[in-house]
Amino acid sequence: MKVRGQHYRTIWPDEAENRVIRLIDQRFLPHRFVIEEVRTVDEMAAAIREMHVRGAGLIGAAAGYGMYLATFEGDLVAAAEKLKATRPTAVNLAWAIEKQLKAIGDQTNTEERRRTAFSTANQIADEDAEFCRRIGEHGVELIRRLSEKKGGAPVNVLTHCNAGWLAFVDHGSATAPIYAAYDAGIPVHVWVDETRPRSQGSKLTAWELGEHGVAHTVIADNAGGHLMQHGKVDAVIVGTDRTTYTGDVANKIGTYLKALAAKDNAVPFYVALPSSSFDWNIRDGLKEIPIEERGSEEVNYADGWHDGVHVEVRVSPENSGAANFGFDVTPRGLVTGLITERGICEANEQSILGLFPEHRR
Amino acid sequence: MKVRGQHYRTIWPDEAENRVIRLIDQRFLPHRFVIEEVRTVDEMAAAIREMHVRGAGLIGAAAGYGMYLATFEGDLVAAAEKLKATRPTAVNLAWAIEKQLKAIGDQTNTEERRRTAFSTANQIADEDAEFCRRIGEHGVELIRRLSEKKGGAPVNVLTHCNAGWLAFVDHGSATAPIYAAYDAGIPVHVWVDETRPRSQGSKLTAWELGEHGVAHTVIADNAGGHLMQHGKVDAVIVGTDRTTYTGDVANKIGTYLKALAAKDNAVPFYVALPSSSFDWNIRDGLKEIPIEERGSEEVNYADGWHDGVHVEVRVSPENSGAANFGFDVTPRGLVTGLITERGICEANEQSILGLFPEHRR
Repeated sequence: MKVRGQHYRTIWPDEAENRVIRLIDQRFLPHRFVIEEVRTVDEMAAAIREMHVRGAGLIGAAAGYGMYLATFEGDLVAAAEKLKATRPTAVNLAWAIEKQLKAIGDQTNTEERRRTAFSTANQIADEDAEFCRRIGEHGVELIRRLSEKKGGAPVNVLTHCNAGWLAFVDHGSATAPIYAAYDAGIPVHVWVDETRPRSQGSKLTAWELGEHGVAHTVIADNAGGHLMQHGKVDAVIVGTDRTTYTGDVANKIGTYLKALAAKDNAVPFYVALPSSSFDWNIRDGLKEIPIEERGSEEVNYADGWHDGVHVEVRVSPENSGAANFGFDVTPRGLVTGLITERGICEANEQSILGLFPEHRR
Repeated sequence: MKVRGQHYRTIWPDEAENRVIRLIDQRFLPHRFVIEEVRTVDEMAAAIREMHVRGAGLIGAAAGYGMYLATFEGDLVAAAEKLKATRPTAVNLAWAIEKQLKAIGDQTNTEERRRTAFSTANQIADEDAEFCRRIGEHGVELIRRLSEKKGGAPVNVLTHCNAGWLAFVDHGSATAPIYAAYDAGIPVHVWVDETRPRSQGSKLTAWELGEHGVAHTVIADNAGGHLMQHGKVDAVIVGTDRTTYTGDVANKIGTYLKALAAKDNAVPFYVALPSSSFDWNIRDGLKEIPIEERGSEEVNYADGWHDGVHVEVRVSPENSGAANFGFDVTPRGLVTGLITERGICEANEQSILGLFPEHRR
């Protein structure tokens, strides 16, 4: 998507050199746009571990390019271990590394390895971007219909956290239909939940929407229900970290509350996801999906920029503890539909397996 | 309630001098405990206007003491105008000033005026504290029953914003049953919503609970639904800025989302209020209660303490706008009960007017 009027991906190989990968270092967003040059496996591992890059799709692509850099260093197995250890629970990370090992594993010629690893890494990135593009292609029809129903008045979409192009290689999942609508000239406006405690909505989603030109308004996570009560939200579109094949949706903490409000106010609630985010083994999301607990400091503190400097401020009393659950699970009954690269289905086993019959058992 | 082991009210007259009112300057909480001495109407007006004191009950008491200070300055009408202009929408402010004008208006003897104004101000403050104490007396029975049902395990109460003693003269509304339970030796633990954008939960509720000794944990506003899904909340108790005589509850933005989650998980949802918070004229809260929009900077920024200094940090991009709705309305159907100074009733016209028959028309 666009930054300062120019098209970017979140990660891309340098065209001139053959051992340089560039990526947007997201730690400085929204207040500085920093492009990092990565030349070694260690540098790529640090970029993933220290969250210069984050988001399922982007982490997979970064790992793919990391394995390409490994072909310059020699020990592919050691590189694979190093990269895998950066974010142990990221499914796409392991998947991309395995894909690379399989593609380059049998080859002994160094030049051949490099060429194969490079094309495999590009393929991983391209596929991620393409799947998101298709999510946009399917999802934009929902927005188009809402727009027609409103006689061309702007369609108000509410989103939570960042399931934007910054979390993938391009387009994003939840944002793909929004960008597709914007690019097609359909008037659209986005309510951006700030998404405490890490504020990915405020920091990342607001930034990427703004850079691409999409009208948006940041709101406190508390505000969505009120907006829906007063007819100011036409649809909710969120991403997901993991969705069961039965349609239960694990996503950033707070998603469930918005889904309840959507249901209560007859606002359609969509989840956009590439099929790699389906968990084909879990039946009951609420009981079976483990919810990560993160450090309490994220809740006790807030962070942002003051006089151009990044500062963390203590909000709560020094003696007060905090709990910090990373995700919640939205039960399938609250989900209007799932927008995938193959089309839109309902959030139930039959409809999901209808689109992805190869996962039938 | 207690601060550093000693009992405090939020506002009180100095016993030694006859022209000094002391109050807790809440702007510095939770990181500094500052007691301000107020000696003039101008100083009291500033304390109300600049939110050294806030909360319906406390604003009323401050206005009462402000009118007492006015008796040292002479022009009661000018003082009344000045105090009323500080927070024009605060119902208790106007009510307390009118009460004082009525009490002292006919007297011409200066000493007599002062004595009457002093006792009226104390009476306003005492009544506020007493009504909150009674809310605690009624509400503690709900917590006691939950405690018995849990075999004595800690009762987990979730609250939103600050409807604590800092918003009144003492006890608070939502916190009154919690303090009463704690003081009666019933094990109780409070989930404190941080309550963005102004973070009154994190800054005020966490502080006052901690100082009194009540176990508590700060959470992001996004977390309550997840906690309820997993049986970690036994009851929700919140305050209200205005509740219709039909039971619709206007309270800090985000309350409605918690009420939806409580309903979805069969968690009882209580609203604690002195009867002065009832609006006896409005039938449909969602349609008729005006919702204040506040400045966008509260959403775009976060504030807290860094190296002992209060700092505001910009979180969102410089070019992103924000919307900041102060309150939302929780429809009566989501409310389990109202805890008032006269007892507990259901959130409907019949039950409310049963407790307050003098408002029948």
